[in-house]
Amino acid sequence: EHVLFSHTRYPEKEMVKRSQDFYELLSKRRSVRFISDERVPMEVIDNVIKTAGTAPSGAHTEPWTFVVVKDPDMKHRIRGIIEEEEKINYMKRMGPRWVTDLKRLRTNWIKEYLDSAPVLILIFKQVHGFAANGKKKIHYYNEISVSIACGILLAALQNAGLVTVTTTPLNCGPRLRMLLGRPLREKLLMLLPVGYPSKEATVPDLRRKTLDQIMVTV
Amino acid sequence: EHVLFSHTRYPEKEMVKRSQDFYELLSKRRSVRFISDERVPMEVIDNVIKTAGTAPSGAHTEPWTFVVVKDPDMKHRIRGIIEEEEKINYMKRMGPRWVTDLKRLRTNWIKEYLDSAPVLILIFKQVHGFAANGKKKIHYYNEISVSIACGILLAALQNAGLVTVTTTPLNCGPRLRMLLGRPLREKLLMLLPVGYPSKEATVPDLRRKTLDQIMVTV
Ligand SMILES: Cc1cc2nc3c(=O)[nH]c(=O)nc-3n(C[C@H](O)[C@H](O)[C@H](O)COP(=O)(O)O)c2cc1C
Ligand SMILES: Cc1cc2nc3c(=O)[nH]c(=O)nc-3n(C[C@H](O)[C@H](O)[C@H](O)COP(=O)(O)O)c2cc1C
Repeated sequence: EHVLFSHTRYPEKEMVKRSQDFYELLSKRRSVRFISDERVPMEVIDNVIKTAGTAPSGAHTEPWTFVVVKDPDMKHRIRGIIEEEEKINYMKRMGPRWVTDLKRLRTNWIKEYLDSAPVLILIFKQVHGFAANGKKKIHYYNEISVSIACGILLAALQNAGLVTVTTTPLNCGPRLRMLLGRPLREKLLMLLPVGYPSKEATVPDLRRKTLDQIMVTV
Repeated sequence: EHVLFSHTRYPEKEMVKRSQDFYELLSKRRSVRFISDERVPMEVIDNVIKTAGTAPSGAHTEPWTFVVVKDPDMKHRIRGIIEEEEKINYMKRMGPRWVTDLKRLRTNWIKEYLDSAPVLILIFKQVHGFAANGKKKIHYYNEISVSIACGILLAALQNAGLVTVTTTPLNCGPRLRMLLGRPLREKLLMLLPVGYPSKEATVPDLRRKTLDQIMVTV
């Protein structure tokens, strides 16, 4: 039931180089909100989702479902639901502080990328599963596990040269779940529109914290 | 305030190859609970944490602190706290179902890796920050953002040839936070012991779900 772990070890110099190169690759990742309608190779989508599926999960429950939406009509219906709810979020549900905090990102409730992106990946967390005997199986830490898988998915997309923006469509979960026919035990956690950036794509001119602002050594 | 996004695009064939190679690299990641005491290059640790810091975060709050513990005495005190609490978790706090669910992983409350691993990375989420005027700044989705950063950290460690096990030390957060002198607004989310596998390291013989078990296409 337990097996020897087989490990690939690199010489120190190569470890440093590999870690530096990977940092440089990922440091170029940005949330892109202008996505072209050009199609992407579906084999790459399969591979990045397979990669996300290698994530660790609490007690190996693998509590994730990735719904890949390519159908233009379905994308448009998703856009309809999200824009309807987001408009209410911006106008009524969330306070002025939330709206101010988001101002510099220039986001609003118009989400053209939901139509234009060739692929939408909706990530559901399974709040419980089923054991062999049909009984409910608890999914420990399911939200953390699925978010870790999403981090790995983002790395895989960046590595492949595709762009996305990590979004959490507020208050849209139940309607999108029903639209996509997912069971009650699955809750929408994230939606990633995936594709190539459109020609005129811009991003907010953000800076990231430096290493000494995020790391403490003891 | 907004700038043109600059993108690196690969030819389709290369995208497929890159996504395949990255899948193969990450599919070899396993949670390793037997870690050798051999030291690791600290430049690699810096690089993987810098990489984690490229993660997206709700409203760009970057709500993470990575505490890197190398000091043997501090590692030992961390082990003391975790083993004390975990023993109570296994014996009393958690039901027999939790203990059964974990049986095939053969985990228990003895955590030798907390002494042997040359580096422990304790990942804290900042539940709020401070604005320029000293007022509390809300950190939207801080737990999800930090978990995504942890996913990217795991990918970076695997890429560099280091091993770890993602752990969530149950009920240990407040004591470890105080031991490390972290402020109240920071909560422990994860602890990753990092190093090389020990020579006799074994792992549970787990299988992962296949692509069609985790992906649905619409
Ligand atoms: C959120 C989370 C919490 C975890 N907590 C623990 C833990 O406290 N102790 C432990 O030994 N493993 C823990 N694990 C590791 C899982 O048991 C492991 O990922 C799972 O069995 C799959 O094995 P793999 O990572 O080798 O693919 C955790 C994993 C995740 C994602
Ligand atoms: C959990 C989470 C939720 C987010 N939600 C949204 C969202 O709903 N809409 C959006 O446009 N961006 C969203 N973002 C993207 C962030 O605004 C973005 O990551 C941040 O501004 C940093 O920019 P960068 O990703 O380009 O580094 C979210 C990010 C995270 C991690």
